[in-house]
Amino acid sequence: MARLMRPLQEDAGGLIILDQTRLPQETVFVRLEKLADAAHAIRTMQVRGAPLIGATAAYGVALGLKEGKSLDEIIATLAATRPTAVNLHWALERMKAALAQGRDAWEEARAIAREDAAANAAIGRHGLPILAAIAQRKGKVAVMTHCNAGWLATVAHGTALAPVYAAHEAGIDVEVWVSETRPRNQGRLTAWELAQAHVPHTFIADNAAGLLMMQGKVDVVIVGADRIAANGDTANKVGTYLKALAAQTHGVPFYVAAPLSTVDFACPDGAHIPIEERGREELGELASPVANPAFDITPAALITEFITERGRVQPTELARLAS
Amino acid sequence: MARLMRPLQEDAGGLIILDQTRLPQETVFVRLEKLADAAHAIRTMQVRGAPLIGATAAYGVALGLKEGKSLDEIIATLAATRPTAVNLHWALERMKAALAQGRDAWEEARAIAREDAAANAAIGRHGLPILAAIAQRKGKVAVMTHCNAGWLATVAHGTALAPVYAAHEAGIDVEVWVSETRPRNQGRLTAWELAQAHVPHTFIADNAAGLLMMQGKVDVVIVGADRIAANGDTANKVGTYLKALAAQTHGVPFYVAAPLSTVDFACPDGAHIPIEERGREELGELASPVANPAFDITPAALITEFITERGRVQPTELARLAS
Repeated sequence: MARLMRPLQEDAGGLIILDQTRLPQETVFVRLEKLADAAHAIRTMQVRGAPLIGATAAYGVALGLKEGKSLDEIIATLAATRPTAVNLHWALERMKAALAQGRDAWEEARAIAREDAAANAAIGRHGLPILAAIAQRKGKVAVMTHCNAGWLATVAHGTALAPVYAAHEAGIDVEVWVSETRPRNQGRLTAWELAQAHVPHTFIADNAAGLLMMQGKVDVVIVGADRIAANGDTANKVGTYLKALAAQTHGVPFYVAAPLSTVDFACPDGAHIPIEERGREELGELASPVANPAFDITPAALITEFITERGRVQPTELARLAS
Repeated sequence: MARLMRPLQEDAGGLIILDQTRLPQETVFVRLEKLADAAHAIRTMQVRGAPLIGATAAYGVALGLKEGKSLDEIIATLAATRPTAVNLHWALERMKAALAQGRDAWEEARAIAREDAAANAAIGRHGLPILAAIAQRKGKVAVMTHCNAGWLATVAHGTALAPVYAAHEAGIDVEVWVSETRPRNQGRLTAWELAQAHVPHTFIADNAAGLLMMQGKVDVVIVGADRIAANGDTANKVGTYLKALAAQTHGVPFYVAAPLSTVDFACPDGAHIPIEERGREELGELASPVANPAFDITPAALITEFITERGRVQPTELARLAS
């Protein structure tokens, strides 16, 4: 049966996800029936990307309730899957509040998914003028990104790639430098996504980012985020910080594109963001000891602006958006 | 037949090399009989590391002459193998000069190899006080390196790792952060080397370097070099520049360890160093366009000192060492 190419979709009391651990080699959909399926999908990164993790967790609550599990158990199980992405915790808190008010779990999960798609579309609209201005000056615009913050990482549109898609659709000559993103190689997902959409792009080793900026081949960096502290310090896929340092050195503007659900207003700064340490097997077979932090912290001072669904925001102005 | 564990050794009119494309999985020695064998070994990175490339090229001249090939053809063939490492060209020039003076090619190649080993031993001695001083202050010293600049990259001892081995032998509590070094994964060679020598080390993705420096887990960075311009700008394995930027940001001293044969006094600055572009297959199977620069340039301003066989040298003082 042909499936819509979407990272997550509801299906008769269950959830169908695109298994991102099989991409880009194979396009395999997996059906999630139970709480344990949802927790497993998040933990093993069958679904990944902060916004998509949040939406999947919201549906995971609905699946757990259908099984008759207690809300406490459901929340504890899902919260333990990935420590860094704040959208996970944001979605679980929202589900708890909705259920306490007597709302339906499926309805609330649907609302979260719908709102994520709408937020990302808005991020695309708000980011488009950045790329349009560069393209107007130079005839084209070369964007560097890191990891995958495209539609595969969200319910739809993507975060960092939303402005790229918006620019491409507007007929702007946009090309993308895609970093491999070791150790999990999410750059391959980004390359696959961009190829599907016919957006010109070039795949590179993460190590090449500094040279390319030195050579003037990068006009702007746009990345996603897994958790943004109230002061603007941003946790994103490990390696983001090195790109931010190179961008600052070479005067390349550095944007973080994320829905406001990624901002943890209770977290004062980057030093308070937990960094997930993942398994050694991600680095391949090796006799030596391994360290594998999955995220790093980019200080607010290196970030030009945030691109959110409510518009572009300076890091210093982020805190005033706390709702 | 048991072989000495050395990257290169003479053997009855031929050359025995350790095939580094098979490490660390397999320890395979290959016999080079002809000029074409030597050129192939350098091009395909069976031997790699600027100093070892130089020594192998010197022996390659002797192999070519034994075959009856013209010196011009020999030099042209070997010079075309790898564009960035200057030691290759340095060794070929030295062989030409020696032959013009009637000296024996094998004798001269042996002298180059012997001098490389001696230079690296001296680099170890000159670098040791840097590590000893940190260890005295902190009880131990954590070194970060990039790529492989150990004994596998040289005739013996290594360049960046020579001070590490010297410190370890002196009983100093030294540990090493080993970067994977995509796309060719030479960090696996470094991890293998350090494990053989029982030097404590931890393997990481290249992307993790910035976070580790931010967390204060790196006391000093030591890397090798493929070509050093007269002003101190340094070409080394791609990704070195990102580590140098992070080191500067966090006040971590950044050293380049290399024999003076790596300095190209005729090259004014980094903008004049050719950057080798290697094949797309190094990034793995992928439908997308690929860019694969093998080196990047670290500006002299980011380099604390060079560690050479003649002692430690400030970047600004490098030019006065031109012989």
